[in-house]
Amino acid sequence: MTDDNEPRVIGLACGSSHSLALISTPTGSIVLSWGRGEDGQLGHGDAEDRQEPQAVFSLIGRGVSVVHCGAEYSLAVAEAEKQIYSWGWGDFGRLGTGDVKDVFIPCPLPAMTGRQVASVACGDTHTLVATAAGELFAFGRNQNGQCGLGSIQDCVVPQLVTALQGKHVTRVACGAEHSMCATAEGEVYCWGWGRYGNIGDGESQDRHLPTKAKGLSGIKVAQVACGWRHSIAVDAEGAMYTWGWAAYAQLMHGDRTDQYVPKRVEAVRHVALVAGGWRHTLAADREGRVYACGWNKFGQCGVGSTEDVVTPQQVQGLDGERVVQLKSGWKHTLAVTDSGKLYSWGRNVNGQLGHSGMQDSREPKELTALSRGNINIEAFT
Amino acid sequence: MTDDNEPRVIGLACGSSHSLALISTPTGSIVLSWGRGEDGQLGHGDAEDRQEPQAVFSLIGRGVSVVHCGAEYSLAVAEAEKQIYSWGWGDFGRLGTGDVKDVFIPCPLPAMTGRQVASVACGDTHTLVATAAGELFAFGRNQNGQCGLGSIQDCVVPQLVTALQGKHVTRVACGAEHSMCATAEGEVYCWGWGRYGNIGDGESQDRHLPTKAKGLSGIKVAQVACGWRHSIAVDAEGAMYTWGWAAYAQLMHGDRTDQYVPKRVEAVRHVALVAGGWRHTLAADREGRVYACGWNKFGQCGVGSTEDVVTPQQVQGLDGERVVQLKSGWKHTLAVTDSGKLYSWGRNVNGQLGHSGMQDSREPKELTALSRGNINIEAFT
Repeated sequence: MTDDNEPRVIGLACGSSHSLALISTPTGSIVLSWGRGEDGQLGHGDAEDRQEPQAVFSLIGRGVSVVHCGAEYSLAVAEAEKQIYSWGWGDFGRLGTGDVKDVFIPCPLPAMTGRQVASVACGDTHTLVATAAGELFAFGRNQNGQCGLGSIQDCVVPQLVTALQGKHVTRVACGAEHSMCATAEGEVYCWGWGRYGNIGDGESQDRHLPTKAKGLSGIKVAQVACGWRHSIAVDAEGAMYTWGWAAYAQLMHGDRTDQYVPKRVEAVRHVALVAGGWRHTLAADREGRVYACGWNKFGQCGVGSTEDVVTPQQVQGLDGERVVQLKSGWKHTLAVTDSGKLYSWGRNVNGQLGHSGMQDSREPKELTALSRGNINIEAFT
Repeated sequence: MTDDNEPRVIGLACGSSHSLALISTPTGSIVLSWGRGEDGQLGHGDAEDRQEPQAVFSLIGRGVSVVHCGAEYSLAVAEAEKQIYSWGWGDFGRLGTGDVKDVFIPCPLPAMTGRQVASVACGDTHTLVATAAGELFAFGRNQNGQCGLGSIQDCVVPQLVTALQGKHVTRVACGAEHSMCATAEGEVYCWGWGRYGNIGDGESQDRHLPTKAKGLSGIKVAQVACGWRHSIAVDAEGAMYTWGWAAYAQLMHGDRTDQYVPKRVEAVRHVALVAGGWRHTLAADREGRVYACGWNKFGQCGVGSTEDVVTPQQVQGLDGERVVQLKSGWKHTLAVTDSGKLYSWGRNVNGQLGHSGMQDSREPKELTALSRGNINIEAFT
């Protein structure tokens, strides 16, 4: 029988080349970070990489409830405090602080203080925040309309996406320069950069306002996720749909044909979790089996090779356990199983796998220091 | 008396975090690369960093005459062959190969074969090539109009910039997402991303077509260069002008005020060479003294500290020698003196300084392996 007070991983996030884990402990949550640190995205106050998890000191005791990563920045929501913290590369206002300075120690976002947050997503240079009330705020770069405001002016301060007023936004996701959301009614909207069909409206143009993805009428979407230049949706029955860039077969359709409208993924059914990487995609079904597809140069698909995966293959090496958390960075993947084990695989040149050293891993490798029953908080602080 | 047959550095280029050097030898030129290799930008066939110079084998014997770097890609011109080679990150067609694949071993650009090239520049995701006939070709990402074609459609194949027909383009430069050129008549045009005033037309809008920079009438510009989000011009008398982003005091005006039109740099006179980094700028005067200004977190200004340099300071530690070649990456700088010594300074986390190891350097450090009289070609091959 497991001890609910036992420290365990309750949240994961991956940036281009860095990783975050949220650990619950009897005295409150702790955020750990590792991987690339050049732009301050690890929050340790310097610009150095870390090859092993290290606690983000300034967030201890803040009650962080969820963590997120953009390409080269990070964000934490502290639910009880009703506060959002951000850190990393600051250009274009992606951190939401009100200016464009880089941040090396997490800072609170004054504009979001007091708001109850339901869902957050971070792209390359922009950020989305959906509140519990169903409102959507956007900030950061907006050159391709990814803030959904009908203009292409960048926003250093969070802006309300008025085009979605009247809709209750429940889930958000960001690709490199595009955005997605799902509403309480199960509708999906996309906006921003759209050159590979990733908007899903049948065209390949940027959209400066939220645009309904086509072909999903009557379908109640429960989850949305983005890869760098592709889009993913999962409905309440576990059917998965992808659209956008397919040059690396990342759409899971068994080909390299870009899709301009959502297309059902036939190879994986009863999908419970999805994660979009730079040029690859992962899905876990309700049995907790993980399937990967796409670019695999660094082993990020976790199937034991470095050949691109054109038709979804099951990820082995998870000891037959069910995966219950799944996140993907550009070239690496993190997963947590139902027994609380944390696995990482893919590129490790910046230490983003957390195993110490810089050896890539083409199969899941357990990060034992963060597996339930094994977590020694003092070791990270 | 120096031996003209002695191997020496005749060209330099810097990307975001990598470096190229062109070495002349009695049997032909050799290209060496080092630093960040993740995207194939070193041309060695793999994705690994190099902390010391290594020869790019496939370019041996090709008669490479000049080398250039974009943020995460590289380019070499082979003048006698009338060929251009490119390698590195391929998205958006920045390599000019006709597709968007990454390239890990240099490939020739079919579309440019047979053309005599006068000047080349590479940005984050786009490339400019000016021919000896004075025509300008552009390819790569064009979302902000940086290809100068009047549209925002990306170009995977080189396109003629028809707006400059009738002008003889002699020099080109690229920032992150903007472009500059100088003509034989000494005029300066800018286009592309323009939000920080870096276009120089008094506004802060993107320009999809070449736009004349204001306030330079009667001035004959001889050189152009770009930092990430700023622009630099030098006239025939050695007067230097800068405009664009100044948040890090990189414009050399002693303040942090963005400039929307070219402004004369008072602090440095009789300028012979300029180089634009990510958030810093360097200038060498006709006596070969180097001055630096701007972001200095990693010592990239070379003035012995890591405090930002707000008013231009002279770079010490070059042994009183004259600098005759000067190039800057995002956070590092390379320089060659008239006696043929190569110095590097700044960030070294990817080995971009070439000294072996990853120790940053806040002052010029001689890269003795590439200094004239000391170059052992066999050591790099």
